[in-house]
Amino acid sequence: MIKARVTVTLKNGVLDPQGKAIEGALSGLGFTGIGHVRQGKVFDLELESADKAKAEADLKAMCEKLLANTVIENYSISLD
Amino acid sequence: MIKARVTVTLKNGVLDPQGKAIEGALSGLGFTGIGHVRQGKVFDLELESADKAKAEADLKAMCEKLLANTVIENYSISLD
Repeated sequence: MIKARVTVTLKNGVLDPQGKAIEGALSGLGFTGIGHVRQGKVFDLELESADKAKAEADLKAMCEKLLANTVIENYSISLD
Repeated sequence: MIKARVTVTLKNGVLDPQGKAIEGALSGLGFTGIGHVRQGKVFDLELESADKAKAEADLKAMCEKLLANTVIENYSISLD
């Protein structure tokens, strides 16, 4: 079994109101010196295959089809 | 400037309906051999300080106070 982690983040230049809200909330809590905050998503998947190359190709297809909106998001895949 | 990534994931045993929905959607798209899927959050922060130890302590406090719900979530911090 392969464990994989897919991280999906917004592309540069895409507005991130959620990140902005977190910036505001952190300042409100008294944290200073915080620059930009961007929020993304992380998916932890278990794949039953033992073939790493196939798993990576499958994960790429999953990202393109479902996990990421590639118009506005980047994704990165890491296998354990 | 320090760039940090905070990853927040659900603790083991906490139900993850979003992850279950993704599992279902992936099977529906024809992907087979997928075990559990769990969804989490990732925060990319820029800190103006140059002191790594202080940055790490600040990030820990931010996680405890705002970024993670430590009753049901784990967090991990990585600095660039």
